[in-house]
Amino acid sequence: MNLSDIGEDALVQRLTQGLPLGANVIAGAGDDCAVLRTNGRSDVTLFKTDCVVEGVHFTADTPPVLVGRKALARVISDIAAMGGQPQHGVITLILPPPTSVHYVEELYVGLKTLALDFGVSIVGGETSRGPLIIVSVSLIGKAPAKRWISRSGAKVGDRIFVTGKLGGSIRGHHLHFEPRVAAAQWLVSNSTIHAMMDLSDGLGQDLPRMAKASHLDFKVKEQDLPANDGCTKLHAWSDGEDYELLFAVPARAASKLNTEWPKQFPALLLTCIGKFVPLGEGESPRTSAAGWDHF
Amino acid sequence: MNLSDIGEDALVQRLTQGLPLGANVIAGAGDDCAVLRTNGRSDVTLFKTDCVVEGVHFTADTPPVLVGRKALARVISDIAAMGGQPQHGVITLILPPPTSVHYVEELYVGLKTLALDFGVSIVGGETSRGPLIIVSVSLIGKAPAKRWISRSGAKVGDRIFVTGKLGGSIRGHHLHFEPRVAAAQWLVSNSTIHAMMDLSDGLGQDLPRMAKASHLDFKVKEQDLPANDGCTKLHAWSDGEDYELLFAVPARAASKLNTEWPKQFPALLLTCIGKFVPLGEGESPRTSAAGWDHF
Repeated sequence: MNLSDIGEDALVQRLTQGLPLGANVIAGAGDDCAVLRTNGRSDVTLFKTDCVVEGVHFTADTPPVLVGRKALARVISDIAAMGGQPQHGVITLILPPPTSVHYVEELYVGLKTLALDFGVSIVGGETSRGPLIIVSVSLIGKAPAKRWISRSGAKVGDRIFVTGKLGGSIRGHHLHFEPRVAAAQWLVSNSTIHAMMDLSDGLGQDLPRMAKASHLDFKVKEQDLPANDGCTKLHAWSDGEDYELLFAVPARAASKLNTEWPKQFPALLLTCIGKFVPLGEGESPRTSAAGWDHF
Repeated sequence: MNLSDIGEDALVQRLTQGLPLGANVIAGAGDDCAVLRTNGRSDVTLFKTDCVVEGVHFTADTPPVLVGRKALARVISDIAAMGGQPQHGVITLILPPPTSVHYVEELYVGLKTLALDFGVSIVGGETSRGPLIIVSVSLIGKAPAKRWISRSGAKVGDRIFVTGKLGGSIRGHHLHFEPRVAAAQWLVSNSTIHAMMDLSDGLGQDLPRMAKASHLDFKVKEQDLPANDGCTKLHAWSDGEDYELLFAVPARAASKLNTEWPKQFPALLLTCIGKFVPLGEGESPRTSAAGWDHF
């Protein structure tokens, strides 16, 4: 049995079973970030790693400044999805020896520029040779101890929201997206967010993950999905790399959110796409597997 | 100009120039780990990333349990070299889709077993497909705020010590080495350690790095190098992946260390291999480049 037989989720589930966790681990593998206790302080530490691989997340033609940008932006997006603030990053670069120094410097320009925009300090890294370019980024962030958000807290009746428009990211959004740090922090401070995650593998894959983690099903209607121009509703459901926020809000807080949001974020669409329901009562655009699986 | 023209150190120097660092960064890129302030507590946070690449750090024939072990052991060794205690790790796995699930599970057995031995919680990870196997590990650790050790604090006259025997790691040590956490913590608590690092790229490469960071030269005599059985002194100087401790101790503390060490670590050799001298007065087995360069 190989990885393409079982897929990414089943592999991760096998690997993370029975991991030894110390007393100061509040949440380990399974969410957008790990959540760590920090000696009784008012903040928790968030910890996350992610990578971009040539031929998977970018191509040899992608401008290196955008490769570096994307590598960091993906991890900032994960910190954002927990309601956190990114702080410190370390970078692992795998590079073929014939790579030009200029290429690597440009890649770092992309990393540094985004780091500066989001207040991230790049504090270290490692380089190794390899047959293709890979950039792995690990980030430490922080969130208020009482206000970090997991993906597993959705309740029956919660309204399901997404920011932005979905689908067609491959046409360019995946290299230029803006991690939703400010939006997520506003949400956790000004609404009641039961569960949140970022959309990296496509709504059709990520929403079922949130539902499963919360032991719920969901009802989403195809016509309610906010599709990008030139995208079908099915693309909005299935395409990966949107890097928008997906979150659950109790019905009583949803209408206030709908009123307040446009005042705060007039340029960022907010859409209620459905609701969470008890197990066995779900309904979705496509019940078969959708979204992006790495294997 | 490409990477094989300039080499790893020059590349890293170019990339890390002008990195934006926040106020709570005590030490950024350039040491074994980054050192981060933690809200005025008595500890500092250490942060480090590293990776192992198929064909560079292990081969397709290496038992996967040892691949996982090595990936984590290397980063624990870096935390140890700062006088720190490893705490939390996240793992990035790059895997070809035909990889067997059994292989990946065995790799994780190696990771988990070593994590348990050293009190490390594996708190998350990420998987992506790629053309060969890469395991990247990022670790958070801690050290007493007043007792973390950089590689840049050596002084003129300091004696240079190494633990263990050097050279020939390729015959197996690189897969089985024991990170020197206990030895390093004993050293920072019971001696006066001015500078410390772990030997990953070979003494002939790593000692000049410590000297350069400390703005010093060194004198090392070939006959004083502790070579492994079957290794020449030149191997002890040039081979990589020893993962032993290299450290600088003021002359006045060296004799006490030589007396106390064997009582604490009877099975681990400790050798004074030379001393630090002012710039321009150095002397070493080979003045040309030695050790391991990734490009």
